[in-house]
Amino acid sequence: MEVVQVLHMNGGIDETSYASNSLVQKRVISLTKHISEEAITNLYCSTLPRSLAIADLGCSSGPNTLFLVSELIKVVDKLRQKLGHESLEYQVFLNDLPGNDFNTIFKSLPNFQKQMSYQMGPGIGPCLFSGTPGSFYGRLFPSKSLHFVHSSYSLQWLSQVPEGLDNNKGNIYMACTSPPDVLRAYYEQYQRDFSMFLKCRAEELVAGGGMVLTFLGRRSEDPSSRECCYIWELLAMALNDMVSEGLIDEDKMNSFNIPQYTPSPSEVKTEVSKEGYFSIDHLEVSAIKWNDFDNEFNASNAFSDDGYKVAKYMRAVAESMLVSHFGDAIIDEVFLRYRKIIADRISKENCQFINVTISITKIG
Amino acid sequence: MEVVQVLHMNGGIDETSYASNSLVQKRVISLTKHISEEAITNLYCSTLPRSLAIADLGCSSGPNTLFLVSELIKVVDKLRQKLGHESLEYQVFLNDLPGNDFNTIFKSLPNFQKQMSYQMGPGIGPCLFSGTPGSFYGRLFPSKSLHFVHSSYSLQWLSQVPEGLDNNKGNIYMACTSPPDVLRAYYEQYQRDFSMFLKCRAEELVAGGGMVLTFLGRRSEDPSSRECCYIWELLAMALNDMVSEGLIDEDKMNSFNIPQYTPSPSEVKTEVSKEGYFSIDHLEVSAIKWNDFDNEFNASNAFSDDGYKVAKYMRAVAESMLVSHFGDAIIDEVFLRYRKIIADRISKENCQFINVTISITKIG
Repeated sequence: MEVVQVLHMNGGIDETSYASNSLVQKRVISLTKHISEEAITNLYCSTLPRSLAIADLGCSSGPNTLFLVSELIKVVDKLRQKLGHESLEYQVFLNDLPGNDFNTIFKSLPNFQKQMSYQMGPGIGPCLFSGTPGSFYGRLFPSKSLHFVHSSYSLQWLSQVPEGLDNNKGNIYMACTSPPDVLRAYYEQYQRDFSMFLKCRAEELVAGGGMVLTFLGRRSEDPSSRECCYIWELLAMALNDMVSEGLIDEDKMNSFNIPQYTPSPSEVKTEVSKEGYFSIDHLEVSAIKWNDFDNEFNASNAFSDDGYKVAKYMRAVAESMLVSHFGDAIIDEVFLRYRKIIADRISKENCQFINVTISITKIG
Repeated sequence: MEVVQVLHMNGGIDETSYASNSLVQKRVISLTKHISEEAITNLYCSTLPRSLAIADLGCSSGPNTLFLVSELIKVVDKLRQKLGHESLEYQVFLNDLPGNDFNTIFKSLPNFQKQMSYQMGPGIGPCLFSGTPGSFYGRLFPSKSLHFVHSSYSLQWLSQVPEGLDNNKGNIYMACTSPPDVLRAYYEQYQRDFSMFLKCRAEELVAGGGMVLTFLGRRSEDPSSRECCYIWELLAMALNDMVSEGLIDEDKMNSFNIPQYTPSPSEVKTEVSKEGYFSIDHLEVSAIKWNDFDNEFNASNAFSDDGYKVAKYMRAVAESMLVSHFGDAIIDEVFLRYRKIIADRISKENCQFINVTISITKIG
């Protein structure tokens, strides 16, 4: 699988789109927002820039795309008003892989900008938006051009499926039955990727610039811990059922692996410290239930069970990879089975995603 | 018609797309390329920047989008090699209205970038691409952030249909039968828009930064000259035929006007001089036949007449506006008639587009 070409959240705004199925991801952004707000407040007060360039890496397409950056702009603009400073120019770069649905974001921008300038009053400087397609495991921006980088639920994606996973038969991710060389291959790919990420961003950020990064991760030091692997193990169950019924080719199944790594806090810390470009201001772990839909109102989902909803948002995330590997004929059936398996498990267990958030500052 | 929301070249890459029907626009870029190359050479030699930010305004979606900027990068990179300078960072901003098909551009970027670094060898610095959706009649980029701006066949589009065109009945653009107040309304809208354009770009360009702008225009001082209006007069004929047959509502026809102005060289010069932000380095007029397809090979068009091809590229340009105003039911019929009218005229007359190109430098 060529990750850069294949991976994207489902585009558009219809029922199966990521835009309509990204409430859990939005809750995670809300949950960790205070860390970004604190970081950008410190950044503004310590550097007092006349213009502020913010990048959101792995922005996807939907209500989450513009949510956090607009909150950050509001925080900074209130602050500069309070301090009696002149208005700033805000430049926002929205980054994702080239297959992301940028068109839908861009079409929503005129209304978003109108709303924003209405909310913030006439004193605000220009808020200028660009989309930057490409992998964040390479350079995206000129040297010393960014002040602040945010990324949520994106950096668990690897640049490629690790090599050497031939022994991971029957699994599609790290699992308790994965042999040690598979776990090692995943970890080494993560180290290479995250190290490259830090190097590129260190070049692109100004001295004193900051990053707040939230990954899907785990608390445990065991990389095959259920905390981070269970959601994919259940998808593997659905796929394996279909293999046993002859609906999916066994070799196809054995050669499919998710290009993801869900690190522990100490693994994240180790990479950041090793590279030495950044100081660590904050490292936090939080959790969110798979079915954290308490305050949701979504007419089309109102009478559906939680298994349906979880399977639906997982589909918005994983469909592009599954279709690329297995073709689209099996997709409806896969998610029908996945839904039933998930519904059963969340009725019996407390299933959670673990989020690792790190706030770091570029050393001058 | 809300121009910012409505106007876009036909997206995608299929038979009716702008990408497949923009050969004339490509020829115009080739025809005027030497002016941009000279401008960027002068810019590089006089300012020797370590990074170079280039914006293409009205980039559309198709082979033309990346053609000129990649040529310019090659020119600069050869020059810096010849002069023995270190490699630069290139940052390219592709701008168009939010309805433009950025997704198709973005998906083509990974291959384009690979090809480019292959052609240019290992010494080239990073070439970083972003898309910037929005009207160029407002701010798009931070202050003093751009070195070079290019725009071809975009600035003839106005920010809105001028007000006060009620008397332009039976026409859809300026025409020899348009009353003086209609011509005045068009000219005044052009003055307001182009003046705003210059003001915004003057803020965004560094001192010594340059712009090369090519408009659809005219040689004559008569704004209703056939040089610039004939192509739309023929479309009006097709529409009026359908009005007389009851296929289009007369009021609908009377309230449709193209948001375009095709200035003379002296009108362009007057605005630039009046604003005073820029010095004029070069002003040139060129012409291109409507049916300049001599070297084209396009399998799907190979056996078609020139009327078909001209109508097809005009459709890729004008369809979004026509559909927004008249609905999509009439479109095939309109272009069938337009095709016949065009075929007849180009068999009898030498029909040309007139291009006005201006190269200007921001005064320090």
